[in-house]
Amino acid sequence: MTVAAAIRRALPAERLLYLGDVARQPYGTKSPQTVIRYAVKAADFLVGRGIKALVVACNTASAVALEAISARHPGLTVLGVVEAGAAGAARASVSGRIFVAATEGTCRSQAYERAIAKRRDGTRITCIPCPLFVALAEEGLTDGPIVESVARHYLSPLFDGKDGGDCLVLGCTHFPLLAPALARLAGPGVKLVDCAEATASLLVDALSGNRAPEGDSGGLTLVSTDAPDRFARIAARLFPAMGPAPLVELADLY
Amino acid sequence: MTVAAAIRRALPAERLLYLGDVARQPYGTKSPQTVIRYAVKAADFLVGRGIKALVVACNTASAVALEAISARHPGLTVLGVVEAGAAGAARASVSGRIFVAATEGTCRSQAYERAIAKRRDGTRITCIPCPLFVALAEEGLTDGPIVESVARHYLSPLFDGKDGGDCLVLGCTHFPLLAPALARLAGPGVKLVDCAEATASLLVDALSGNRAPEGDSGGLTLVSTDAPDRFARIAARLFPAMGPAPLVELADLY
Repeated sequence: MTVAAAIRRALPAERLLYLGDVARQPYGTKSPQTVIRYAVKAADFLVGRGIKALVVACNTASAVALEAISARHPGLTVLGVVEAGAAGAARASVSGRIFVAATEGTCRSQAYERAIAKRRDGTRITCIPCPLFVALAEEGLTDGPIVESVARHYLSPLFDGKDGGDCLVLGCTHFPLLAPALARLAGPGVKLVDCAEATASLLVDALSGNRAPEGDSGGLTLVSTDAPDRFARIAARLFPAMGPAPLVELADLY
Repeated sequence: MTVAAAIRRALPAERLLYLGDVARQPYGTKSPQTVIRYAVKAADFLVGRGIKALVVACNTASAVALEAISARHPGLTVLGVVEAGAAGAARASVSGRIFVAATEGTCRSQAYERAIAKRRDGTRITCIPCPLFVALAEEGLTDGPIVESVARHYLSPLFDGKDGGDCLVLGCTHFPLLAPALARLAGPGVKLVDCAEATASLLVDALSGNRAPEGDSGGLTLVSTDAPDRFARIAARLFPAMGPAPLVELADLY
């Protein structure tokens, strides 16, 4: 949803269809085979609704399932958040010492290491699995002493400054919710790369020539595979314009 | 797995078949409809393997899916952890002021309130959703400053002692892993009810007359719906007798 929110801000004239696979999340702790299976089903659903571009707005799914999805839907613009985040990091870092905070699945895939190396030589990248950040963000616990102690638990090698890190990639779409706390703990010498913002920029480029006419009212449709109440509660925080109880459509992807 | 470990200790001669629905966990944040769907599929799989008793070793699934499972498999002994935990709490509390730490799904179902009230009059029960405990336990973070601050975040109404609570039900099968920390924070005036132990006792009673001959070697078979590596790592902590890399069978329940 952080990615959808960034896309809404960057492309307000486009009509956005957001699918949250709430029935089977989180993806970050699951095997590549299972994540591919779930992500391909989700992509098929969205393609079936008639879309001109697909954003895989989950780092774990981007890291392991992007190829499978692209191969299945040739001709469709398919973007992933990992490529966007890697491009942002390759630009943002001066020292070349880059930390990535991500899920276990994303770190295990080494997708960030590969994507950053493709763009820039001489970087040193450390991907740190931060699974508790997902639970904190989902619960709306985004700052305060608990967030600080969990962040120190994972990221002290960056925070203590001894290692020369000057860039932290928020390599899970939940983590931008923790960005203010992480920025404060990391200090002014560390740039935070928000995959959500980076992906929105990438999408603006990818859609050039195929954009909705400026001034179109755009719109956002929310679809969830389960528990639309909880989903609506989280959406209300991220899309305040939709009111306190946004309408959520239920989709069955079994 | 905490329940399976307690059953192993209580009934070492029995052959135990453990299924972890890793591909779709956690259940605690999902809707009742989805939990029922997943739990019924898991039960069908286990029944298909030829079992004499079924323990629904998840509080959320026990709270919402026990009836559906029992109705589908008449004649089979089906036990849930909620009934066991409620019986334990009804016995353990003197003041009748009982706290239950559980998932969102279990609290929403009010299954503990109903199950305790059935056994004892005049109790006052507060069910507190503690979703971060699940993530902490899964990551093996079971004590220390992070666990303490998260526990205080949820359970200060019990810990501060003003409300007369004398009993805390660990109403999620992940929570026994945090029991030492929670017991210390709650102090000696609060009894902890461990659903895992309570369920094992209930099963001992339920199997009377249908027990494996004493001295049988028993055994434990582990089955997972995904990511057997991660599953095996967690199993190794709970079943040290299986060695550092226990064998895990993969089952496809889609």
